[in-house]
Amino acid sequence: MVQDSSGPLAAFFAPRSIAVIGASDDPVRIGGRPVDFCKAAGFSGPLYPVNPTRETVQGLKAWPSIDAIPGEVDLAVLAVPAARAEETLEACGQKGVKAAVIFSAGFSEVGAEGAAAQARLLEIARRHGMRILGPNCLGCYSGASGACATFTSGLEGGMPKRGGIGLITQSGAYGTHLLSMAKTRRLGVSGWVSTGNEADVTVAECLEHMVDQPDVTAIGVYMEGVNDAPRLIRALKRARELGKPVAIIKVGSSEVGAVAVQSHTASLAGSDASFQAVIEQYGAVRSRTTEEMFDTLYAASVAPLPTGKRLGILTVSGGAGVLMADAAELHGMTVPPMPEASVTKLLERNPFASPRNPVDITAHALNDFDLIPEYLAEMMRAGDYDAYTGFFTSWTASPVLGPRLRKVLLETLEGSGRPFALIGLFNDEQASEYEERGVLCFADPSRAVSALAIMARLADGFGHGGDAALPVIGDPVIAAAQMDEATAKARLAAAGIPVLPERVVKSAEAAAEAAEEMGLPVVLKIVSPDIAHKTEVGGVALGLATAEAVRAEAARMLTEIPAKVPGARISGVLVSPMAGEGVELIVGTQRDPAMGPMVMVGFGGVLTEVLEDVVLAHAPVSEAQALGMLDRLRGTRILDGVRGRLGVDRAAVAAVISRLSVLAAANAGNVESIEINPLLAREDGAVALDALILPAEGA
Amino acid sequence: MVQDSSGPLAAFFAPRSIAVIGASDDPVRIGGRPVDFCKAAGFSGPLYPVNPTRETVQGLKAWPSIDAIPGEVDLAVLAVPAARAEETLEACGQKGVKAAVIFSAGFSEVGAEGAAAQARLLEIARRHGMRILGPNCLGCYSGASGACATFTSGLEGGMPKRGGIGLITQSGAYGTHLLSMAKTRRLGVSGWVSTGNEADVTVAECLEHMVDQPDVTAIGVYMEGVNDAPRLIRALKRARELGKPVAIIKVGSSEVGAVAVQSHTASLAGSDASFQAVIEQYGAVRSRTTEEMFDTLYAASVAPLPTGKRLGILTVSGGAGVLMADAAELHGMTVPPMPEASVTKLLERNPFASPRNPVDITAHALNDFDLIPEYLAEMMRAGDYDAYTGFFTSWTASPVLGPRLRKVLLETLEGSGRPFALIGLFNDEQASEYEERGVLCFADPSRAVSALAIMARLADGFGHGGDAALPVIGDPVIAAAQMDEATAKARLAAAGIPVLPERVVKSAEAAAEAAEEMGLPVVLKIVSPDIAHKTEVGGVALGLATAEAVRAEAARMLTEIPAKVPGARISGVLVSPMAGEGVELIVGTQRDPAMGPMVMVGFGGVLTEVLEDVVLAHAPVSEAQALGMLDRLRGTRILDGVRGRLGVDRAAVAAVISRLSVLAAANAGNVESIEINPLLAREDGAVALDALILPAEGA
Repeated sequence: MVQDSSGPLAAFFAPRSIAVIGASDDPVRIGGRPVDFCKAAGFSGPLYPVNPTRETVQGLKAWPSIDAIPGEVDLAVLAVPAARAEETLEACGQKGVKAAVIFSAGFSEVGAEGAAAQARLLEIARRHGMRILGPNCLGCYSGASGACATFTSGLEGGMPKRGGIGLITQSGAYGTHLLSMAKTRRLGVSGWVSTGNEADVTVAECLEHMVDQPDVTAIGVYMEGVNDAPRLIRALKRARELGKPVAIIKVGSSEVGAVAVQSHTASLAGSDASFQAVIEQYGAVRSRTTEEMFDTLYAASVAPLPTGKRLGILTVSGGAGVLMADAAELHGMTVPPMPEASVTKLLERNPFASPRNPVDITAHALNDFDLIPEYLAEMMRAGDYDAYTGFFTSWTASPVLGPRLRKVLLETLEGSGRPFALIGLFNDEQASEYEERGVLCFADPSRAVSALAIMARLADGFGHGGDAALPVIGDPVIAAAQMDEATAKARLAAAGIPVLPERVVKSAEAAAEAAEEMGLPVVLKIVSPDIAHKTEVGGVALGLATAEAVRAEAARMLTEIPAKVPGARISGVLVSPMAGEGVELIVGTQRDPAMGPMVMVGFGGVLTEVLEDVVLAHAPVSEAQALGMLDRLRGTRILDGVRGRLGVDRAAVAAVISRLSVLAAANAGNVESIEINPLLAREDGAVALDALILPAEGA
Repeated sequence: MVQDSSGPLAAFFAPRSIAVIGASDDPVRIGGRPVDFCKAAGFSGPLYPVNPTRETVQGLKAWPSIDAIPGEVDLAVLAVPAARAEETLEACGQKGVKAAVIFSAGFSEVGAEGAAAQARLLEIARRHGMRILGPNCLGCYSGASGACATFTSGLEGGMPKRGGIGLITQSGAYGTHLLSMAKTRRLGVSGWVSTGNEADVTVAECLEHMVDQPDVTAIGVYMEGVNDAPRLIRALKRARELGKPVAIIKVGSSEVGAVAVQSHTASLAGSDASFQAVIEQYGAVRSRTTEEMFDTLYAASVAPLPTGKRLGILTVSGGAGVLMADAAELHGMTVPPMPEASVTKLLERNPFASPRNPVDITAHALNDFDLIPEYLAEMMRAGDYDAYTGFFTSWTASPVLGPRLRKVLLETLEGSGRPFALIGLFNDEQASEYEERGVLCFADPSRAVSALAIMARLADGFGHGGDAALPVIGDPVIAAAQMDEATAKARLAAAGIPVLPERVVKSAEAAAEAAEEMGLPVVLKIVSPDIAHKTEVGGVALGLATAEAVRAEAARMLTEIPAKVPGARISGVLVSPMAGEGVELIVGTQRDPAMGPMVMVGFGGVLTEVLEDVVLAHAPVSEAQALGMLDRLRGTRILDGVRGRLGVDRAAVAAVISRLSVLAAANAGNVESIEINPLLAREDGAVALDALILPAEGA
């Protein structure tokens, strides 16, 4: 028996023996399928059908109960009604079963009573040191061991081609569709697992397991909610470290979808934007569609990852070349031109060509087939692109031209180490001949370019792996209590975030004195832990140019505001110098219920509120990562100076984001959110003009 | 012979006779293919191979020259080298041939000499009243007549299934790929045409032709440049009128792509954004990818168009339901819930269900198959959705469940008149059984939803067909000369666009008087046809509150500015009242080199310059269309009042856009651009605060 699996979930994917409880002689029934599939997949360990009413099941000796089985049982499959699940699991525990797959439905997905029953299952498992998959799941499949603890109809009609792709799905029914799609797309599958209600084993743990299997080269995940964010992040980091692509579909991005997910999973309702940020930050990709996920897995399992985003386009059709150049720009790849000397050389060889990039040989390739390898070789030598696409109209499928094309392409590409996507129509055999030699086959040029672009993003993510250097900010613990602006700013200042030289004073006279000392004009703000929105109560006065004006405004605030907000603790009035020119940003942190502390940056005002031009990241982030966040703002050019304004100090802004994120991560347990609004970014430096720290509820 | 074709291009698609000049006995050679294809497609008119060296060609009598043919020749195919094209075309003209397809390459696509030769071909054709397709094209195919004036390898291995889809392509090689893709996707094709260099017949004219063919129900277009925008718009309007979907791929949206298109077509370089706006304005859709175009054509040719965007989702998998709800939101469809009474009823029938919408029957449908038709019928009755999707995991392909599922779905959907997209895996036979009954089959749920959403957009466009009522603006002709702000505003005012009550004065004293008469404070601006950027020369002063200040500023402008801008004609100083509060917009018009006059609206400032939040339309537009433009601004909520500001008068803004667009359309020949920047939109009304009209070059 092949033993390729290790780790805590090994008993699911590489069990030495399997018992199927509720085994049926009918290979089409739920209790019959695991037996039938195990036989078809060549599971070589002992397979024990448990069925008290039969002597044999599908030709195998049947056992009346789990405890009647003479040998050890690594994995038990529970194909029993929900009402019998507890007693059956208990019997498994007593037998010393290592892991159990529970198909039975009617647990947490149907309400409180079911959730309580599910909790009892978990208790039984814990008591016996047993792991459980499900309940309400379709089980799991391993190509290497042939273990098929599943009734998915995705295994009907034959096992998938063996290969390096792992598939993890929370949904059983959709997971079946995914497995079937993998088969129709000729993808090589290592293993498949559906986690269902996730009483014990989660998507995150399956990912952690699969990433570490040597035969797994790329993983596709379908998930509905995140039940274990720290483990998910750990798994993604490990995948990045090992250079294994992970493509994730997560549903619930829409309003209707989010409600539906909440109603049928017990997953935490983190924000979709936070999830998206975490996935990309740790080097995985979020697939927008099922086909995009399969395109990514297909590309990753057939071709090498590109080491950059420079795309070389070889074509015999100007139109197809332009189409792919358009797609490249759309998906973030570049199409740099060939060196002039090469253009000249290729034009001399074929004056009809347009050999810039896209390199269009034109239909003359039909008269002079050698043009194809010569042009491709020159592109590889002089253009040295990171990835290639090729379009040769219908020749790929032609009985005469197809083999000639394949020969010259494969010979030229041999050992290039770069991905090449061939656009055309192919039957399965024609495609396989290319794919076995590392060449990708696509019918749609845009999808080919998109897949290469996603590969480039993955490679880029892997290149930036490892934990980036974080700033050290001393003792970052923030007392978990409501605090006023001055206190909040003091905390930020202690973490190395610049604030203005401000003073809190208790009287109008002291305000005027402070203003004269720091230099007029000044800003006055009321200071109270109980007033978050100071402007609304008349608690902000800008540009006070004389000591008299300062005195009058301070006096007004100190008398009016206590009357307006009865019971508010007033610490005094904050006197600050005017901040001067710059670009106002919002920088903040927020605890996502699923993903933990997130840090965000945006421009404030209409850009944040209406256009939602905000970039999120999982905290903490390094300064380099924070610079990347600034680049990803749609309005990022504003920081370079537009409409006659000067550019601002991006490094200073990034330092603030990074330090704030470290502060938030260190206080994940006791701080709900921190907001610097505005952070004034200047030509030189950046300074927090206002700050609000909200403690976590119950912290 | 079937004679389904009429109009000026009938001789290409329904010729009574065809001559192939340069005909080869080898059915694989360029000159052999048209003969071979015509025979395979059952072309029933006389087919005359012309080849002076042979007695017969592919079993047909060969003729030594075109003039030797005894009967009339409707269509001649020129499969000859470029050097022989002119004399051959001349002979065709003398023979009285109605139309010629010219395969030969080496004309405008290879430079000035080729362009001159191409012009001579056109001259020959014009002289003889003959139409030509090409040169440098792959010709055309008509399913109804069996006329195959083409050597595309898209017809190798068999003709496409007959059906209602028309395919028009500028590129021959990519067009071949499209034709091959149509075959592999089981699409029914009516006709196919490649236009190549478009010396005479353009994509637009082919579209105009195909739209009017009774057997054509939907059209896919691949184009690189627009050579005849008025005709394209006319054809799109006609398609909208007839309710025939048109899906267009146009390449060259990227920078590299635009350069490449320029280098290999002679098409006008209009802006991609203008093209996009025109396509959508006249009820067609722009396809982002080849597959999306085929999905659209597939959906339009199989299922009825939805009459709205309300999507009902039926599923046996919560996950798939959520995935489709997410896709619906992404693509602009809504997923409204079922009525409460229906939810209650469906829950009574199956307490495990989640029958809100997505309506999740859950896997219980497997035990109780009647749930499927019952739930679907209730959705159709009580939900009355405009379009439906259904997901039943792998049952579609199952030998046992597949036929049962098909039976209940088809029975329930019979006569519903609404599109239903079934998600699953299908072999060709399984899919055909659904498609013949009007049910769409998709493997990817997101693609299914996207296709339905595109259908809904098309239907919506058809619903808004017909020319909308345009404002009458009197005598709109603008003299084609550089004009100053005051003159430009007078033109706008004459077209019914509100401006402030302003006066142009010649002296500082007159400025002060005018200011006092209209009420202080006022704005002063220098008036000169030669100064477009007034602020830069100190030609704008805002908020002047006293007569003295007005006098001083006016005196300064009238002395300083002539010195700063020597030679500028100074008409005087414009005195205007302060405009008050509002949202500043930019409204403008611009002649697109390809598409003609376009009108745009944006918010100005960072939103326009950095975030490019601008909406374009082809001029003229009605007020209703202009309101639609405002809705499509990403920052549209700004008009409703954000951050404590009041909402503005959208109708007044729309009226300005509409009137300006009528003005621009009436002056398309002599005005390059008009810009109102800013247009101040107020709670009540809108007013142009500044205006610039640039005459067309040479006008």
